Amino acid sequence: MEETRPLDALNKARGSRVMVELKNGKQFLGTLKAFDIHINTVLDEAEERENGETKRKLGTVFVRGDAIILISPA
Amino acid sequence: MEETRPLDALNKARGSRVMVELKNGKQFLGTLKAFDIHINTVLDEAEERENGETKRKLGTVFVRGDAIILISPA
Amino acid sequence: MEETRPLDALNKARGSRVMVELKNGKQFLGTLKAFDIHINTVLDEAEERENGETKRKLGTVFVRGDAIILISPA
Amino acid sequence: MEETRPLDALNKARGSRVMVELKNGKQFLGTLKAFDIHINTVLDEAEERENGETKRKLGTVFVRGDAIILISPA
Amino acid sequence: MEETRPLDALNKARGSRVMVELKNGKQFLGTLKAFDIHINTVLDEAEERENGETKRKLGTVFVRGDAIILISPA
Amino acid sequence: MEETRPLDALNKARGSRVMVELKNGKQFLGTLKAFDIHINTVLDEAEERENGETKRKLGTVFVRGDAIILISPA
Amino acid sequence: MEETRPLDALNKARGSRVMVELKNGKQFLGTLKAFDIHINTVLDEAEERENGETKRKLGTVFVRGDAIILISPA
Repeated sequence: MEETRPLDALNKARGSRVMVELKNGKQFLGTLKAFDIHINTVLDEAEERENGETKRKLGTVFVRGDAIILISPA
Repeated sequence: MEETRPLDALNKARGSRVMVELKNGKQFLGTLKAFDIHINTVLDEAEERENGETKRKLGTVFVRGDAIILISPA
Repeated sequence: MEETRPLDALNKARGSRVMVELKNGKQFLGTLKAFDIHINTVLDEAEERENGETKRKLGTVFVRGDAIILISPA
Repeated sequence: MEETRPLDALNKARGSRVMVELKNGKQFLGTLKAFDIHINTVLDEAEERENGETKRKLGTVFVRGDAIILISPA
Repeated sequence: MEETRPLDALNKARGSRVMVELKNGKQFLGTLKAFDIHINTVLDEAEERENGETKRKLGTVFVRGDAIILISPA
Repeated sequence: MEETRPLDALNKARGSRVMVELKNGKQFLGTLKAFDIHINTVLDEAEERENGETKRKLGTVFVRGDAIILISPA
Repeated sequence: MEETRPLDALNKARGSRVMVELKNGKQFLGTLKAFDIHINTVLDEAEERENGETKRKLGTVFVRGDAIILISPA
């Protein structure tokens, strides 16, 4: 099996819609614009989601890496 | 797609109004004056916001990076 | 007894189904695709589990290492 | 726009009255005497504040940086 | 008195049954297979324990070090 | 204004009675014997204080730095 | 006044009975066998204490440093 690194998976998701879940339970849907080794993440056209519905629109949002639990393609 | 780093997004927001959300749930609106790699952040003409209203005015405020969840253009 | 390192155990589980338990109590079942020294982990064909049942399907998911408590073969 | 660093803002506040807010919700008012890159901070003539009133006087107080959320001119 | 280091005690327990207690209050009993300087730990033939009884069997389990409070011979 | 570092203030307090407040809300009064850059701290003739009264006497006590919020002359 | 370092105090307590208090409120009494710069600590003939009484006997116990609040001679 080919060895891959976790950030490769994030790299493949650049430019795609992803769901970011935070330690405080909040969910943000947006286009993955950038990330770094701390998992500091920038989403474009971001919106906060709650129970499958848009709660508020945020445009571009910078999320501090240590607030993030997981990132998954939307 | 051009690769960018998360702090580039913050850099573009320098001098603009941003909303900073903290781990304790508080929100601060202010002009992004400075930040560093820890996301220590300085806002000018800052105000604490609650339910979309100004709760108190703070002038300049230094926010310790690890207290921050996200930063978004206001 | 032969000395082994903890990440050797994860390495042996690459490509197999594993259960990942998070600090917030959530459980994710998926195929272990990648991990790094921070235990940042990528699962393929992932699903969130609750009380032994599938709660939602996630496809590929990146989990930030510091959110993880344990990883165990499913 | 001139680039500044967050600690420059703290440096400008040296010798002035500042309000320091902690993660546990407490607020301390004092004269900013010293700080370092961890935001370990020393206040002189410090007092704990609650609901805009002095709760107790502390004289000099050393606050560990990671307990601090924000520092703002009083 | 001979000076020893904490990880020497863990090293002596390799291959023996140990109880691992986590910050979330969970207890895991298993054979100590591997650990590293972060106290990332692998148990074989592991089981979750609750009130002195086996709650579930886990086979091999990787526990992230920072989730651990203590490790003690069973 | 002369620039000072936060640990200078602690250094001046060596040998004096100080109050140490912890993240868990506990307060310890004692003679500041030693500290290091992590703010690991040793108090001599220490006592735990509650509501301005002595709760228990501890003799010498080592306090792990990251448990500390603030240190102030008693 | 002679300058000492916090770990000197722990070193003097090697081989003696100490009380170790954890962030989760638990207390362990035991003979201080080993510690390191992270305050990872090993106690021999350890017992968990509650309200001044022995709750359970543990033999040797390894305590992860970041779970510890304080260590004091028993």
